[in-house]
Amino acid sequence: MYKIVFMRHGESTWNLANRFTGWVDVDLTDKGINEAKTAGRVLRDAGFKFDLAYTSVLKRAIRTLWLALDEMDQMYLPIKNDWRLNERHYGALQGLDKGETAAKYGDAQVLVWRRSYDTPPPSLEANDDRASFNDPRYAGLSKEQIPLTECLKDTVARVMPVWDEEIAPAIRAGKQILISAHGNSLRALIKMLDNISDSEIVGLNIPNGQPLVYELDENLKPIRHYYLGDQDAIAAATAAVANQGKAK
Amino acid sequence: MYKIVFMRHGESTWNLANRFTGWVDVDLTDKGINEAKTAGRVLRDAGFKFDLAYTSVLKRAIRTLWLALDEMDQMYLPIKNDWRLNERHYGALQGLDKGETAAKYGDAQVLVWRRSYDTPPPSLEANDDRASFNDPRYAGLSKEQIPLTECLKDTVARVMPVWDEEIAPAIRAGKQILISAHGNSLRALIKMLDNISDSEIVGLNIPNGQPLVYELDENLKPIRHYYLGDQDAIAAATAAVANQGKAK
Repeated sequence: MYKIVFMRHGESTWNLANRFTGWVDVDLTDKGINEAKTAGRVLRDAGFKFDLAYTSVLKRAIRTLWLALDEMDQMYLPIKNDWRLNERHYGALQGLDKGETAAKYGDAQVLVWRRSYDTPPPSLEANDDRASFNDPRYAGLSKEQIPLTECLKDTVARVMPVWDEEIAPAIRAGKQILISAHGNSLRALIKMLDNISDSEIVGLNIPNGQPLVYELDENLKPIRHYYLGDQDAIAAATAAVANQGKAK
Repeated sequence: MYKIVFMRHGESTWNLANRFTGWVDVDLTDKGINEAKTAGRVLRDAGFKFDLAYTSVLKRAIRTLWLALDEMDQMYLPIKNDWRLNERHYGALQGLDKGETAAKYGDAQVLVWRRSYDTPPPSLEANDDRASFNDPRYAGLSKEQIPLTECLKDTVARVMPVWDEEIAPAIRAGKQILISAHGNSLRALIKMLDNISDSEIVGLNIPNGQPLVYELDENLKPIRHYYLGDQDAIAAATAAVANQGKAK
């Protein structure tokens, strides 16, 4: 039997400010820092020893990983930063206040943008300062690989090759893996693992900073999954995610 | 012309306590943390943009790198942790107070252990708790690869393949590289680059937490090198290193 652990980054400044974030490289809040450290302690106390970690190229996921590894005294772990594990690109909504956007367009439209599987939010213009073409962390990519907006279906399409080409072979080779990523890149992985339908996956809420353990059989099919740590805190964090984006 | 930047980790708790450290995984002091952050700001202000970073599997070098990358807003940088960039293994002296060891054996003997090129300190016993055979970060190595003591010559022998097989090809491929390592793994690299003799390299003191820039020609031969940052602080840090290990 194999195990893999997923972690959504701790609370970010724009989770707190209720703004659409996507590929914008915002940092953790103090609460997010504490969530990351707590996740590390929970993993340490549960006896987890990892061989390898994956994360995105966005600092809220990287810092969550670094803080957790520090608490686990496993700072020496090899870390693979992969842009394909980034959050879903939120297009022209990036930077906008979720409540104001909901007040302007209505909860229903925002919910479509947030939770439709295959309807992306309005696209950034290619010459928008928020486009990622000149960001050095994406320098190795072609212009076609860098999104200007994404629906969850698009995110799933870019995340899956990381699983198929790198993570799954590493698990089969016996590596204990920790993945620190984002709400939607984790949705992509969980959709695939649990064979969740397009319509159901958009309603799956993953709490910030809570280690999620998947136990897998020899074909990498899930046997069971569970969050480690304080179950009340996990329920509260899940509810907080579900309530994001509603007009205030 | 190529450039590469070397950084010795910031002050560690055992630099401060004046104990032989080697492969013991001690952390940075508050001063060391500040040195690492300052190094990051100095590199940022000098406009350095890196493509890749190398460090050891010891947290004082890893944390120095993480703190510097954070200040540079380049946390997304790929990091390769390589045990071959570890500090020289200090054998049975690891954990001993440098001043007490000097008072007991004399400054001259300690200076031989510290600064002879090819005389290692007394070896750890293989069953000593301080041996690294059961440390998971070295799990991929054969027993023969894990030292029980090293002279600088031994350290040079293990460091050089990292340069030849990984770092030099990456520089030639145009990668801007930052290396966060240790006094003796950096001595090994500088010895090779500047073709320094066995007798002279042992007297080369590298200050903690000061970015050292090497400009290299197309054959990777040094054109010049210099420390970035406040020159008085660099001189003071270099003198502090030179005075370590004398009886008090």
